[in-house]
Amino acid sequence: MSVRDSEQSRVNAKQATAMGPLAIVCGGGAFPAAVADAVRRRGREVILFALRGFADAASIQQYPHQWIYLGAVGRVIRLMKQKGCRDVMFVGAVYRPRLRDIRLDWTTIRWMPAYIRVARHGDDQLLSNIAMLFGNMGMRVRGIQEVAPELLIPVGALGRHRPSAAEEAEIMLGRRALQALGPLDVGQAAVVVGGRVVAVEAAEGTAAMLARVAEIKRSGRVIAAARAGVLVKAPKPGQDRRIDLPAIGVDTVKQAAAAGLAGIAVEAGGTIAADANALVRAADEAGLFLLGFEPDAETIR
Amino acid sequence: MSVRDSEQSRVNAKQATAMGPLAIVCGGGAFPAAVADAVRRRGREVILFALRGFADAASIQQYPHQWIYLGAVGRVIRLMKQKGCRDVMFVGAVYRPRLRDIRLDWTTIRWMPAYIRVARHGDDQLLSNIAMLFGNMGMRVRGIQEVAPELLIPVGALGRHRPSAAEEAEIMLGRRALQALGPLDVGQAAVVVGGRVVAVEAAEGTAAMLARVAEIKRSGRVIAAARAGVLVKAPKPGQDRRIDLPAIGVDTVKQAAAAGLAGIAVEAGGTIAADANALVRAADEAGLFLLGFEPDAETIR
Repeated sequence: MSVRDSEQSRVNAKQATAMGPLAIVCGGGAFPAAVADAVRRRGREVILFALRGFADAASIQQYPHQWIYLGAVGRVIRLMKQKGCRDVMFVGAVYRPRLRDIRLDWTTIRWMPAYIRVARHGDDQLLSNIAMLFGNMGMRVRGIQEVAPELLIPVGALGRHRPSAAEEAEIMLGRRALQALGPLDVGQAAVVVGGRVVAVEAAEGTAAMLARVAEIKRSGRVIAAARAGVLVKAPKPGQDRRIDLPAIGVDTVKQAAAAGLAGIAVEAGGTIAADANALVRAADEAGLFLLGFEPDAETIR
Repeated sequence: MSVRDSEQSRVNAKQATAMGPLAIVCGGGAFPAAVADAVRRRGREVILFALRGFADAASIQQYPHQWIYLGAVGRVIRLMKQKGCRDVMFVGAVYRPRLRDIRLDWTTIRWMPAYIRVARHGDDQLLSNIAMLFGNMGMRVRGIQEVAPELLIPVGALGRHRPSAAEEAEIMLGRRALQALGPLDVGQAAVVVGGRVVAVEAAEGTAAMLARVAEIKRSGRVIAAARAGVLVKAPKPGQDRRIDLPAIGVDTVKQAAAAGLAGIAVEAGGTIAADANALVRAADEAGLFLLGFEPDAETIR
């Protein structure tokens, strides 16, 4: 760390203390802990509000934390304010909640019609509507861009491998597919093989889509070299970028390799990785390129 | 049959004889036989050119037929002309051919670069490019619209059940998803559940997509009533409508029912059914609506 970085870090730490601890509402997966670590490295305290039924107990208990119920929004906001939190962020997967993990309180019940309507639509709308509810109750909803931007994938090739010109064209085709579907609130990911969109992700998730691509290749419905094609991920156009950004990890690399793809391209600044070093290592080992593309660029580079 | 229908039928039969037999290049599945039967009912002879590795031997042998290889286009066209065929149509599924089922001849080899390029892209482009090759060699490529229009799904509700207003909105959303992806040559089908596009078909086929929807519902990633949502199918905008129109059958109804859907909506005049009576019976029994929508209508009705 240079002197200047170190000074900057102290300034950040001072500012951070003035802002109070960051409340992190934690769903499942490795991202809540990764965000908590990143925020602490910047000198700000965190309090994890772990969603029963979703958050991973083993990693949560390494931080100051409270267990909460998804339906008890009023109680949770009071608790956050008591602890001096003004800023809240939402991290991690929240799928269909089991009823016993919800425990509605009156604040939530007053919002029930909207809550139920959005709850039927799956995880991203559920989270962004709960976030809106927190915003209306006086909390400031923060995105990963604001509190831990180092978890975002940067522009350029991250590992040792590079896409070919043909693969760059495939990346553009995948991006066009995602853009076309965006207005319909579908699709954070697609797979292009042999110049053709062979899979589009809707509600099934990236892992299921990649398993399908592996199966499609095995069955011979798509003919391709042993290592060909690309996974493309990007936020939906117009989505709330504080909530539910697309994510990639070592698992994604393994699944893409199992599907016989040549690489992964994601929107730079709009895709998160809990552990970028491990991600790059996995991509290098698997022989996959790993590329962050600029959101608005007409070409890959 | 009324007197007028009967006269019309005799006129058709006379015209049909003058046109010579229809050559039907047969891929897999039940459609080649259904088309052959429909054409014969109109009084025209057929000769089936059965693709080795794809066509179903048991049904093919009930008609005048020749076994052919996918790669022997020159030989096949000479054979067709010898038999007095000027009109040819392509029916049935052709996926990745095994090399031993191809048997290239010189006509095809002259076309090899284009042939290989399209063969990599999957069944519909493969077939439409082979069709183009036949057209260039003096054959007239016919579509199901011209030779057996009664196999096309008509406008309106076909069975006993009707979509609700909410389901009509879901059909419109599914159609918009297909239209959005059309320019990218993706998607003859999508599934909408709870007002949300939950699955988009690319290379995997409708059966695989419906199996995925069943799985998504089971896993709780999508919350819906036991019987909710719709399968929407339509030709890709701009596709060659003589080749590879989307198809539905009793299997599709069973798969849609297993996925817990409330119904199926397809583009009228642009979707084929080998046995519409069996299809309607299956839909009625399964409690699914079955709707043909007008291609350009802004609403369902």
